[in-house]
Amino acid sequence: MSKVRVAAFSISLDGFGAGPRQDLNNPLGVRGMELHGWFLNTEAFKKMHGQSGGARGIDNDFAAQSFEDVGAWILGRNMFGPVRGPWEGDSWKGWWGDNPPYHTPVFVLTHHARAPLTMEGGTTFYFVTDGLESALAKAKDAAKHKDVRIGGGVSVVRQYLSAGQIDEMHFAVSPVLLGEGEPLFSGINLAQLGFTPVRTVCGEGATHVFLARNQG
Amino acid sequence: MSKVRVAAFSISLDGFGAGPRQDLNNPLGVRGMELHGWFLNTEAFKKMHGQSGGARGIDNDFAAQSFEDVGAWILGRNMFGPVRGPWEGDSWKGWWGDNPPYHTPVFVLTHHARAPLTMEGGTTFYFVTDGLESALAKAKDAAKHKDVRIGGGVSVVRQYLSAGQIDEMHFAVSPVLLGEGEPLFSGINLAQLGFTPVRTVCGEGATHVFLARNQG
Repeated sequence: MSKVRVAAFSISLDGFGAGPRQDLNNPLGVRGMELHGWFLNTEAFKKMHGQSGGARGIDNDFAAQSFEDVGAWILGRNMFGPVRGPWEGDSWKGWWGDNPPYHTPVFVLTHHARAPLTMEGGTTFYFVTDGLESALAKAKDAAKHKDVRIGGGVSVVRQYLSAGQIDEMHFAVSPVLLGEGEPLFSGINLAQLGFTPVRTVCGEGATHVFLARNQG
Repeated sequence: MSKVRVAAFSISLDGFGAGPRQDLNNPLGVRGMELHGWFLNTEAFKKMHGQSGGARGIDNDFAAQSFEDVGAWILGRNMFGPVRGPWEGDSWKGWWGDNPPYHTPVFVLTHHARAPLTMEGGTTFYFVTDGLESALAKAKDAAKHKDVRIGGGVSVVRQYLSAGQIDEMHFAVSPVLLGEGEPLFSGINLAQLGFTPVRTVCGEGATHVFLARNQG
């Protein structure tokens, strides 16, 4: 059964999914990169970037699982790149080089139309200008019986959460206190949305928390 | 070296230290009791209440440690009891029977004066009407070289945190989503206050997170 899920989403101990003052030098906001320390060390991450080595273990297992059975992704525009306003030509092709780690259709939420961009390795970026619902419908269609993964950023996750569209969430709580930034859950009533805790597992570099929404 | 600490303080996955709509039937707020499931099972908890049995393990070790080297406690009035307004006689003596689990001086923050209340087992409740700073000074004095433990509730912890008075915190994240209630850290910048993560340990029924404040 196809699900809409958030997976391996890093947050701080104090609940921030990104740091404050995002800009070109700090695409994840100030200190935002620290949230991902657990992931950057893993074999799964190295493999994604065509490298060998990296740590195995609990963190790596969950990182790898987060990519399994995903048939389509949805990303906010800021996750796709630092470009703001209308696209200026086709020069920006994402942060990930010629062969991005998605290997599926990826739907990028934007206010500015752009032709689809086909990359190596099965990734095609589609730029969706008619909103969240439309992006989700397209992603579900593209994913067939596989899952749709909401990649982020924080704002996109919050919007799909609030709309009651997310079935499962796995977030990785990093041993970091940011103090400020983009809170992932603040003002969102997860209990009312029907989420219940499934399990919590301490990894080498983060605590993995799994939530699922009751169906019906 | 004497420290001011919060220990074994239960919060939900979504950051609430108590549920909403606290009243006589729900002294911890609606569903607030669920936050303490990890603790109620422990040998340390049973022992506190004069019972035998209870689970040993990680949760129990941290529960037991939370009582070690404590020379004085500070509690908010709502933690001491459900009575509001002026004390009506001496009939309310806390939730804990004749021999409360503190065995130290306990300073209760209140707006209403009351004579000290000496219980069995070394616990004396002192009622402090001249504010947080005064209560802390009295508690430090009473604790001598031992620690002062800020017992709660949420509001008291938040006030001492905001005042920069807390040196160490151990909170136990329970696998519960409350959705609403009293958030422990919301609006408090722990990084700016100088806190850094010390360690995270998964127990049988909660995830234990330890923070410490950099001195100087």
